[in-house]
Amino acid sequence: MIKRTHFELLWQQEDSWRLRLDTLQLANGRTLQKAAVEHPGAVVLVPLQQTANGPQILMLHQYRHVLGQTILELPAGTRGWDEDWLLCAQRELREETGHRAETFTPLGQLWPAPGISDELMQLYLAENLSPAPLPGDDDELIEIVPMFLDELVEMCWNGRLQDAKSIIGILRTARHLNIQTSL
Amino acid sequence: MIKRTHFELLWQQEDSWRLRLDTLQLANGRTLQKAAVEHPGAVVLVPLQQTANGPQILMLHQYRHVLGQTILELPAGTRGWDEDWLLCAQRELREETGHRAETFTPLGQLWPAPGISDELMQLYLAENLSPAPLPGDDDELIEIVPMFLDELVEMCWNGRLQDAKSIIGILRTARHLNIQTSL
Repeated sequence: MIKRTHFELLWQQEDSWRLRLDTLQLANGRTLQKAAVEHPGAVVLVPLQQTANGPQILMLHQYRHVLGQTILELPAGTRGWDEDWLLCAQRELREETGHRAETFTPLGQLWPAPGISDELMQLYLAENLSPAPLPGDDDELIEIVPMFLDELVEMCWNGRLQDAKSIIGILRTARHLNIQTSL
Repeated sequence: MIKRTHFELLWQQEDSWRLRLDTLQLANGRTLQKAAVEHPGAVVLVPLQQTANGPQILMLHQYRHVLGQTILELPAGTRGWDEDWLLCAQRELREETGHRAETFTPLGQLWPAPGISDELMQLYLAENLSPAPLPGDDDELIEIVPMFLDELVEMCWNGRLQDAKSIIGILRTARHLNIQTSL
């Protein structure tokens, strides 16, 4: 049994996630301090459009400050603490891709980093897209990159796609659409 | 362009990850403070044993303090800052499952949470297991649960497995072994 005997707030990221410092007492009597991210959750979007050459996903090239590099990933965004999940998905899709979608299909939930953070990610397939931009965050550097789903599935297998939420969103989408890429 | 104008250390988790607070200047002149986790990286293990009824994976039921619940996941562990990746994989396998493996096959790398953390995870398939326990961390509550690979693949698709690193490790393993589960 692990018991929390004390906690304090270490850091609050604007009105979003915060870092809490817990003092824990272990079964053997030892106490330790452990930091934990309290996170409001996030949505991950798979914006899909049909083309003459097969289904395409609107991917992003996004500069990730903490990595110091631009990476390939699905659109995603942090939920407001009291925000409805579907409304969050609709808002983030417009902010990050400039599109709205007629249909949102849930593709399950993820814990990206349960050793450090309680963040829960909700995946959505977004279909029947049309232009409807909203201004994005000014601290995000984003470029939209449409890519074919079959190429992305191959990148999930060969390791060229490294972002965890994106790998799972792409593979669940291919499975949902019943695309017969042999596992 | 986003420029870092200042940084400080907010928290150091024992000799492991630390939280840095960056002051950033955006292209439009606005400055903001953003916290970033500096992480030494981690290994994710897929310990596989052949049985008369098909391949089995040694999964864990692990209590995750930050989630307040026990979850199903692959064995994994944080690397020491200067530790060799393969030595880390060998050590964590013995600590968390009580087994050594004769062969470790890399299955690619992941970023679990690139919005907050620079953590890189290296996946390994671990085969030809034999008992060789090492003492684990006293702050970890772990139970080993052998499960059939085909059942785990199904849990990756239907959403019953929610831990991101585990979903990707299981699916890459099935793909590597060329198990014909239709995607």
